[in-house]
Amino acid sequence: MNTKQMRRALTEFATNSKGRKLDPVDLLRRTDMQVDWETLSKLAGNSIVNPRQFDRETVVAIAQLAALLETRNVEMKKPLDGKIAITAFFEASTRTRLSFESAVLRLDGKVLSVPDGQVTGIAKGESLADIGEMFNTYGDVVIMRHPETESVDEIQKNLERPLINAGNGSGHHPTQALLDWYTLLKWRPELSDRSCPSEKKIHLGIVGTPGSMRAVKSFLRLSLMFVDAVSKITLVSEMADPVGLDLTEPIEESPIPIEITNDVQEVLPDLDVVYVNSIAFLGDSYRNLDSRYGLDASSKLKPGAVIMHPLARNEELSEDLDDTVHNLYFAQAAGAVFVRQAVLAAVLNRLDRISDLC
Amino acid sequence: MNTKQMRRALTEFATNSKGRKLDPVDLLRRTDMQVDWETLSKLAGNSIVNPRQFDRETVVAIAQLAALLETRNVEMKKPLDGKIAITAFFEASTRTRLSFESAVLRLDGKVLSVPDGQVTGIAKGESLADIGEMFNTYGDVVIMRHPETESVDEIQKNLERPLINAGNGSGHHPTQALLDWYTLLKWRPELSDRSCPSEKKIHLGIVGTPGSMRAVKSFLRLSLMFVDAVSKITLVSEMADPVGLDLTEPIEESPIPIEITNDVQEVLPDLDVVYVNSIAFLGDSYRNLDSRYGLDASSKLKPGAVIMHPLARNEELSEDLDDTVHNLYFAQAAGAVFVRQAVLAAVLNRLDRISDLC
Amino acid sequence: MNTKQMRRALTEFATNSKGRKLDPVDLLRRTDMQVDWETLSKLAGNSIVNPRQFDRETVVAIAQLAALLETRNVEMKKPLDGKIAITAFFEASTRTRLSFESAVLRLDGKVLSVPDGQVTGIAKGESLADIGEMFNTYGDVVIMRHPETESVDEIQKNLERPLINAGNGSGHHPTQALLDWYTLLKWRPELSDRSCPSEKKIHLGIVGTPGSMRAVKSFLRLSLMFVDAVSKITLVSEMADPVGLDLTEPIEESPIPIEITNDVQEVLPDLDVVYVNSIAFLGDSYRNLDSRYGLDASSKLKPGAVIMHPLARNEELSEDLDDTVHNLYFAQAAGAVFVRQAVLAAVLNRLDRISDLC
Repeated sequence: MNTKQMRRALTEFATNSKGRKLDPVDLLRRTDMQVDWETLSKLAGNSIVNPRQFDRETVVAIAQLAALLETRNVEMKKPLDGKIAITAFFEASTRTRLSFESAVLRLDGKVLSVPDGQVTGIAKGESLADIGEMFNTYGDVVIMRHPETESVDEIQKNLERPLINAGNGSGHHPTQALLDWYTLLKWRPELSDRSCPSEKKIHLGIVGTPGSMRAVKSFLRLSLMFVDAVSKITLVSEMADPVGLDLTEPIEESPIPIEITNDVQEVLPDLDVVYVNSIAFLGDSYRNLDSRYGLDASSKLKPGAVIMHPLARNEELSEDLDDTVHNLYFAQAAGAVFVRQAVLAAVLNRLDRISDLC
Repeated sequence: MNTKQMRRALTEFATNSKGRKLDPVDLLRRTDMQVDWETLSKLAGNSIVNPRQFDRETVVAIAQLAALLETRNVEMKKPLDGKIAITAFFEASTRTRLSFESAVLRLDGKVLSVPDGQVTGIAKGESLADIGEMFNTYGDVVIMRHPETESVDEIQKNLERPLINAGNGSGHHPTQALLDWYTLLKWRPELSDRSCPSEKKIHLGIVGTPGSMRAVKSFLRLSLMFVDAVSKITLVSEMADPVGLDLTEPIEESPIPIEITNDVQEVLPDLDVVYVNSIAFLGDSYRNLDSRYGLDASSKLKPGAVIMHPLARNEELSEDLDDTVHNLYFAQAAGAVFVRQAVLAAVLNRLDRISDLC
Repeated sequence: MNTKQMRRALTEFATNSKGRKLDPVDLLRRTDMQVDWETLSKLAGNSIVNPRQFDRETVVAIAQLAALLETRNVEMKKPLDGKIAITAFFEASTRTRLSFESAVLRLDGKVLSVPDGQVTGIAKGESLADIGEMFNTYGDVVIMRHPETESVDEIQKNLERPLINAGNGSGHHPTQALLDWYTLLKWRPELSDRSCPSEKKIHLGIVGTPGSMRAVKSFLRLSLMFVDAVSKITLVSEMADPVGLDLTEPIEESPIPIEITNDVQEVLPDLDVVYVNSIAFLGDSYRNLDSRYGLDASSKLKPGAVIMHPLARNEELSEDLDDTVHNLYFAQAAGAVFVRQAVLAAVLNRLDRISDLC
């Protein structure tokens, strides 16, 4: 399939309604439309729980496959035929749950859905370890969100199926970080190269507290792997020690210079990418980020700068940015289903049904 | 397929357990088993939000297709193959949600279900406009129920997929009105003709307050289009001004005479059809209609009169009517899935897979 | 398909992670790999509401079919193609709901899910009889759990589709009892024979109160049918009259000697099978069984004794038993999906699509 055919196929798919629209073919063209199947095949049967399990090659390979899936209608090959995914959302999240379930259905898999474990569930005191035991015969992969960080270890005590962590307390949210980097690689494909030219490298600003925000933590963890693409990271947080224990060592070991500040307005004119997050997980409840850190159309952004946000947003990200070229967050959301398709196809060992199509 | 074959096919399908049983072939025979595909094809890609978007021809065409679907097993042709419907019930309604989901599954489409948005959902403060943005890549059509009337406008800000409004606050519930008229057209097929003989015309009584009850409002709005079929409409309400702003103009412009009263017992002996509804949407909560307006087996109904009710019911409709010939409300419920199938096939532009079967 | 092929097929399926692992072929070998299709075919179109409707032959036939399904990948034949199951859990139970839904999906049927009727549902006051009327056109079989014992009679007033009772108040839970006996028959296949040798017969201990615990009641009801397999039943309960009205007569009529005690430790060394349950249904809430009745790795169990538990568990069953040979409860859980597949295929009259494979 050549580039022109791919572009034509692409037009059948929905993309974001506003902001920058990204063409996945731009990323695929970096590798002459090739996907790194060998790297992807190593994910077969594996759980996806923490971004530290990845390396840069794997992140790029997943992005390539997501791009391929975004340009092709693969349903005819029924890549997940006969496979059942359990979406166990013990912490409710309509958006993330539907994103995963859409990915499963688009690949012709089936879904067992737990839309809200706190309500529909576990009132009789069942342990997560016992639930994991049950899931062994119910499905082929478990996608879990849970308010407690330890939940991932707990369910894996007896679970013998791959687990995809869709957010565990203040822990991690690896597929969010993968789709964040999918967005960046589509936006500026040179970032996928070992030889990224210096004028294409990005100064990355992260507004939030990685230590207590799982999406920010996972995104920062992956960003540290892109040593040829990221010239500098600036963390903007009101916290004294925003990094947290998990990332202290990776940050120290990374060649990427990292700066911490508490004034977003001051650094804004120098940032190429501003990653914003509204939701901090603090103990058992959520707290909005201080509204001082808010962005709107009057913020002093670099002309070509892009804003990312995992959504849902609060006041920190004004709707008056939606119709501007700074809005990369809608494109980011639009890529989510394809990254999750890529992860599921790799984990469930069904890459052969997709590679056939190339 | 001839009438006899159709009747035979019909017997495979379930219908209501009690009350009048309707044969969809009676309606199809008015047009020599033809469906008005041309009128239906204009719905492709359109949202279904307010009955005012329809005309009489479209309502009849949808009823014809529903009748065809009620007589045929169309699943082999997989009319909605590869299509995903999102049922976003931000106001919970098990019955209506399952009715839509059954329609999708019977046509071999797939479902992403939000069984209760108030619980499973939107606690993080996500706006409906942002949710609409997400839904663009999750599915192919969105079926939404929401307690707020403005929700339909709100989600459509960014949503680029067709929206089917399954009830928005005190707004509208268009597919309910379509299935109400499907019931009437099956019951008395002459009502579908421009030349309905006068002895077949109906005096329609509506017990309820269209201004604040979405199902009643949508049913009245469609009824005003059937100028050759409805000889008179009597509104029975305890409210001083039951009509509400939306319908003031359509009522003034309609040639159908409309009377308003607050005494159901007085008009009952003259009504051919009594449409009852139990539930008034008043601000943010529901209120039962005054029990004085109740019907039971001792009510002074015309011998051939039929009672309709969108259900769920309360005391206004006694179970002692269930086993009588006045019970059209069970047949009304039994037709729901087929009307929703018809709407979905038209909106998702898959009529060709059904018309092949004729 | 011969025994060797079956064993090979089996390895593709998951089983329990810990405790005894059971091979379904051991049961099938008792009948030279034959399933009693004739007995199973009598279930077509029937509701499954109370274990008293079964006889020993039917329980064994269901276990044979479950064993066959556990050894074979039958999905290619799409046994439930075109069939829709409604899982109406008016009392939430994630585990049981997913078990049934997995069974439907594994047979290629479709699911309409009500994950929590108390939340998503029935706030408008709809009666179960009216809901049953609706379900007639929504699906082909209804699987219901409900906190009220009368719910089964109530929904069947208008429902014309088969009902599978997945637990009704303090009533019954017949598929749980079927899977309990499936476990026992896999564990000791001689129990399926009329001529079970006396050294293979079991002394069965049941810790719990059948009168108020539906799972225990249903298990005891089935156990009374296995007169050639059960040498004695000992009921361990703190209640003065643990049996309850439903089972008084079946117990009096059974040739199996039944003893009642309140001291589990005393009888433990003599039991071959200990059936434990944590949850007593008392009025409208749940109460844990007295912790005095708890089992752990230090309990004086017979060397070959096995423990069963329908799960979820509380303190009455310690996790330190999980890794022992006494743990039959994980194997019991692992068989649940296959028994439910067998019941669904029989009730929905699709046995022919499975028997083809033999």
